[in-house]
Amino acid sequence: MAGNSFGNIFKLTTFGESHGEAIGGIIDGCPAGLTLDFEAIEADMNRRKPGQSAIVTQRKEPDSVRFLSGIFEGVTTGTPIGFVIENTNQKSKDYSHIQDAYRPSHADYTFDQKYGFRDYRGGGRSSARETASRVAAGAIAKQLLKGITCNAFVSSVGDIYINKPYQDLDFSKTEDTPVRCPDLETAEKMISRIKEIKKDGDTIGGTITCVLKNVPIGLGEPVFDKLHAQLGKAMLSINAVKGFEFGSGFCGTKMKGSEHNDLFNPDGTTKTNLSGGIQGGISNGMDIYFRVAFKPVATIMKAQETIDSQGNVVEMQGRGRHDPCVVPRAVPIVEAMAALVLADFWLLNKLSKL
Amino acid sequence: MAGNSFGNIFKLTTFGESHGEAIGGIIDGCPAGLTLDFEAIEADMNRRKPGQSAIVTQRKEPDSVRFLSGIFEGVTTGTPIGFVIENTNQKSKDYSHIQDAYRPSHADYTFDQKYGFRDYRGGGRSSARETASRVAAGAIAKQLLKGITCNAFVSSVGDIYINKPYQDLDFSKTEDTPVRCPDLETAEKMISRIKEIKKDGDTIGGTITCVLKNVPIGLGEPVFDKLHAQLGKAMLSINAVKGFEFGSGFCGTKMKGSEHNDLFNPDGTTKTNLSGGIQGGISNGMDIYFRVAFKPVATIMKAQETIDSQGNVVEMQGRGRHDPCVVPRAVPIVEAMAALVLADFWLLNKLSKL
Amino acid sequence: MAGNSFGNIFKLTTFGESHGEAIGGIIDGCPAGLTLDFEAIEADMNRRKPGQSAIVTQRKEPDSVRFLSGIFEGVTTGTPIGFVIENTNQKSKDYSHIQDAYRPSHADYTFDQKYGFRDYRGGGRSSARETASRVAAGAIAKQLLKGITCNAFVSSVGDIYINKPYQDLDFSKTEDTPVRCPDLETAEKMISRIKEIKKDGDTIGGTITCVLKNVPIGLGEPVFDKLHAQLGKAMLSINAVKGFEFGSGFCGTKMKGSEHNDLFNPDGTTKTNLSGGIQGGISNGMDIYFRVAFKPVATIMKAQETIDSQGNVVEMQGRGRHDPCVVPRAVPIVEAMAALVLADFWLLNKLSKL
Amino acid sequence: MAGNSFGNIFKLTTFGESHGEAIGGIIDGCPAGLTLDFEAIEADMNRRKPGQSAIVTQRKEPDSVRFLSGIFEGVTTGTPIGFVIENTNQKSKDYSHIQDAYRPSHADYTFDQKYGFRDYRGGGRSSARETASRVAAGAIAKQLLKGITCNAFVSSVGDIYINKPYQDLDFSKTEDTPVRCPDLETAEKMISRIKEIKKDGDTIGGTITCVLKNVPIGLGEPVFDKLHAQLGKAMLSINAVKGFEFGSGFCGTKMKGSEHNDLFNPDGTTKTNLSGGIQGGISNGMDIYFRVAFKPVATIMKAQETIDSQGNVVEMQGRGRHDPCVVPRAVPIVEAMAALVLADFWLLNKLSKL
Repeated sequence: MAGNSFGNIFKLTTFGESHGEAIGGIIDGCPAGLTLDFEAIEADMNRRKPGQSAIVTQRKEPDSVRFLSGIFEGVTTGTPIGFVIENTNQKSKDYSHIQDAYRPSHADYTFDQKYGFRDYRGGGRSSARETASRVAAGAIAKQLLKGITCNAFVSSVGDIYINKPYQDLDFSKTEDTPVRCPDLETAEKMISRIKEIKKDGDTIGGTITCVLKNVPIGLGEPVFDKLHAQLGKAMLSINAVKGFEFGSGFCGTKMKGSEHNDLFNPDGTTKTNLSGGIQGGISNGMDIYFRVAFKPVATIMKAQETIDSQGNVVEMQGRGRHDPCVVPRAVPIVEAMAALVLADFWLLNKLSKL
Repeated sequence: MAGNSFGNIFKLTTFGESHGEAIGGIIDGCPAGLTLDFEAIEADMNRRKPGQSAIVTQRKEPDSVRFLSGIFEGVTTGTPIGFVIENTNQKSKDYSHIQDAYRPSHADYTFDQKYGFRDYRGGGRSSARETASRVAAGAIAKQLLKGITCNAFVSSVGDIYINKPYQDLDFSKTEDTPVRCPDLETAEKMISRIKEIKKDGDTIGGTITCVLKNVPIGLGEPVFDKLHAQLGKAMLSINAVKGFEFGSGFCGTKMKGSEHNDLFNPDGTTKTNLSGGIQGGISNGMDIYFRVAFKPVATIMKAQETIDSQGNVVEMQGRGRHDPCVVPRAVPIVEAMAALVLADFWLLNKLSKL
Repeated sequence: MAGNSFGNIFKLTTFGESHGEAIGGIIDGCPAGLTLDFEAIEADMNRRKPGQSAIVTQRKEPDSVRFLSGIFEGVTTGTPIGFVIENTNQKSKDYSHIQDAYRPSHADYTFDQKYGFRDYRGGGRSSARETASRVAAGAIAKQLLKGITCNAFVSSVGDIYINKPYQDLDFSKTEDTPVRCPDLETAEKMISRIKEIKKDGDTIGGTITCVLKNVPIGLGEPVFDKLHAQLGKAMLSINAVKGFEFGSGFCGTKMKGSEHNDLFNPDGTTKTNLSGGIQGGISNGMDIYFRVAFKPVATIMKAQETIDSQGNVVEMQGRGRHDPCVVPRAVPIVEAMAALVLADFWLLNKLSKL
Repeated sequence: MAGNSFGNIFKLTTFGESHGEAIGGIIDGCPAGLTLDFEAIEADMNRRKPGQSAIVTQRKEPDSVRFLSGIFEGVTTGTPIGFVIENTNQKSKDYSHIQDAYRPSHADYTFDQKYGFRDYRGGGRSSARETASRVAAGAIAKQLLKGITCNAFVSSVGDIYINKPYQDLDFSKTEDTPVRCPDLETAEKMISRIKEIKKDGDTIGGTITCVLKNVPIGLGEPVFDKLHAQLGKAMLSINAVKGFEFGSGFCGTKMKGSEHNDLFNPDGTTKTNLSGGIQGGISNGMDIYFRVAFKPVATIMKAQETIDSQGNVVEMQGRGRHDPCVVPRAVPIVEAMAALVLADFWLLNKLSKL
């Protein structure tokens, strides 16, 4: 209700601020009998965590997940899975300079207005640190979705983009470079660009594309919980996201019906897939693909004028260790949120018909 | 849960198929004491209804809303508002030709797969007729949001688009043309284009932009129910929508942080508004603006090959009265959904602090 | 959220006041493929409706349910089932005498305080007329629960009660008398008592016992949504209910563990059933039985002193046609609510394990 | 959804098994700006914890709550409050004897059937240890409810009961004896009785009465979330509870309307209070009082025949440290659940009218 839960049946509730004692969450509704692969969970956590490479923040966060309940001898028991991720390396002093000032395009001002005051140590609840809990839960959701593959990758950084359809990409190469772009030539350009930007104390935006394969037919709950509506909400709930499109997306608005319609093959598959694997809000068995827009990170290492809580104009300059471009680390978050949506609808769909 | 409710506190649940007896809904959570302007509700219903002009479908649907409860002597009582809109002009025979065939890029196939069979009379539940209930509820939500204005308009049809920032538009002109584009020169081009397309038996996509002014600071419930995440879900739940972006949107991905950050004025407003009125998922008092992508309508008046439920290839041609371009009639739907989101968060926000 | 929905998956939302245009509701989450028996629905509606016999109110309400959606050719489609019951015989003038006065032990005063004013025509939303929608929905829930039987009956009226265990009763006799007590000797005494009370212009309380047989093992969702907790809430939400107990109930508090424990048979059934068919909040396959306490109806045909909204003392006397004892007509309501709880948990339980 | 959350706005989700690593929960929806009294929280935790006296279990559990988020400098921030209570003194070996056997009248059999297997170390999720999380959350809810007092006490143990109306009791004496009965003479009898029972290796049931004073008018959300319906669900969700009644309760069923109706004083209070402070599901400002029935604890120190998971008959005898009577320790749990219900409705009620 107050915004910290996601999902209907496979439901994640998270807690925690960037500079509190710990973050974590509860997954309620995971069926009993799922044998968990903890290494796979750890692997996703490592993909998200800071300090992996020269193009992401150098903060060190161990990000290891401690599961407290809901699992017995490695198998889910059907009871809620509580988990905690300690905040071990948070340097609160790094943030003393912003105690009285609102960082531009951050949530400082709006949190202060909404709640009457704020935890000024870093982003608090609005920090992307919270997404570590999503990745942990998403990793479990992925394991529930046997046979479904979920591949996200960086499709653009600034104006550098992959100029190929996703079908021509080899997703096994996504992790080959720190920028998580499976087209290695483009990846190199992206990395150079990010390094340049970083040197300049600036940041840059980008997009992530996500492809979901082998999704069973029937997922999605019209009319309000259409599969793409819930995927859109999931993506837009990730920090720094400004847009979402699936299938033909914004390009599709320029097309004619006779061009856009996906004609059927006799087996129910379609000859084209401008629908993006979803028709009427329900998966049709074709690949689901969508694109997520991320703005440039708001914390820059350049001086900016801003105001404090009394409305005084003050100068501020980002310190600490921040990402020059958020998309590489956001790839596992996009996958996690997609998996949470699919797991929830996969369970709900078991109840569609007698 | 099964997808037919929207909202947390100001909650709309809808029912009804295009060719059933009636559609309607229940609004639960509207506070007592709101004096309703029924003419304003009727006006919004009329904006959505078919048959308004030469560029939309010629079906006639009276679309008058019968309120059954929750209102006493014109004032809301705090009890649920039930309402019904009769389906008076549904010609089921128009649909006999599709009883055994799946219309391409419609929900026929997915509904059949999900539920085991389908109501083959028109779109059934997936028909845009359902959105009439949303418009009725949204019209009440608008009245709750005194002082907030909610202006949607057609910003593009195919590749014809308004080449001006929204600040340069006069929203009082939106209703001057049937295409609902306030830039009258562009409107003329759009109308010509839609007429051409219609003559050709084809359809075309487009975009709608929506601007929300005077939204109080503090609306939105992070981390999952961020204001823009819920707006995105609301828009993506509208038929034919393929994408959503707010503020700088997809363009913002190409920008640098130093360009993108919205610097503060001493009064807490910002000098620029690439954030689109939302920071950290919470409204900041600036204009909220977003753009919604609509695909071309799938029903075309041209022959298409498709399959029937046995997988036989059959030929099909759209009949009946359908829209060549959906965006003009979708304008009030976009406004309604935006109003539902705002009303819900406006109520929830009263509980943010002691 | 605002209290007019019940259930998680099989979810009923109701609307409507006693003297508005109509009441009704939406059932969301009923699986597709259920062939409905409309006569069975009508039969339950008739059991609840006023005017059936000399011991209940003589108001006439046709109470026929008009289903508007979610059903195609007699079979549920998986889309929401909207329904309406018109208020055809509401005499608003009967209530003019209470416009300015609060009826003792009614909801008049609390509604006025909570919502700022009230619909003074009868009970408004707090009238038991609302339960007609519950009976309609419960009748569908019953049909979903093939093989489960749901038998409620009047077990006491005032201090007259059935002095036998339920196992000795023949539930096929419940409908043989208007008091709905299957023990015909006791039924006669109850009827005499109610007639006496009625003659006196007074009212009397009573209890209903409900027995659910053949409930599958596994229904109920601990820790908060224990089967008996949700049954208790369901029953306590019915007008005039003051208490709920299941299994050994309040008597069980006087027992020792060695007497109260239900020992197992080798097949998992238990030798005794003081647990009432529920252990740890989950059905164990034994009979579920519970008892519901109803207070005497507050509207009496005797003069009572009360106050008006200005705090003036006024005299008031019930008019119109009211029940001298509510329990006979409440029997189908108890069954309906029990069926709604079971249907919801029966669906949810399909998701408990892989 | 899967049963581990309680509340709409002030919402508690709990996790944890008796013999897992830790238990805990998340409170979402607590408004910002509440200065917490941690000693009061600790005091409630101590009232619930085992090992307090000779008449309760001698297990030692430190039960100290570690708050991880949502609080900054002692004040709630409006973000979710995550908390953990470590399981430090769980002796899993105590339970090896029940690994293959179902304890009579416990949840062993039903959990096994529902989830396909069970965590056999103690009660797992169905253990009353879970209620420690409720007490922690309830202690915060109490602090939100300034001015409202919430007094629960043991009103009977077996057939020994307080033979006085609650108005004649001095609640400040409730904590004077380990049995938590404020009538000290009756308390002595209860203690003797429990000691007897314990010596015998047996257990005994009892009741708790709870009185809520100074509750504002208007709490409760008809028609399904009536205040007493939600209180009833809350109480019935506590381990070992078999019944709930409020106001006149089951006794009220024997009364006539003319006796039972609470006549008004000119100020809106009532001369009597058989309604128990709730009319039409909404608090009316009078004292709310209710009674909760607890069965005897199922674990007894006597040999009982039972079955194992293969259906073999085996003999079993309780070991370890269990309560001979659960009601003394359940007093703070009843208060906690009542406070959670009130806090939730207190917040919701702010939205009832414009």
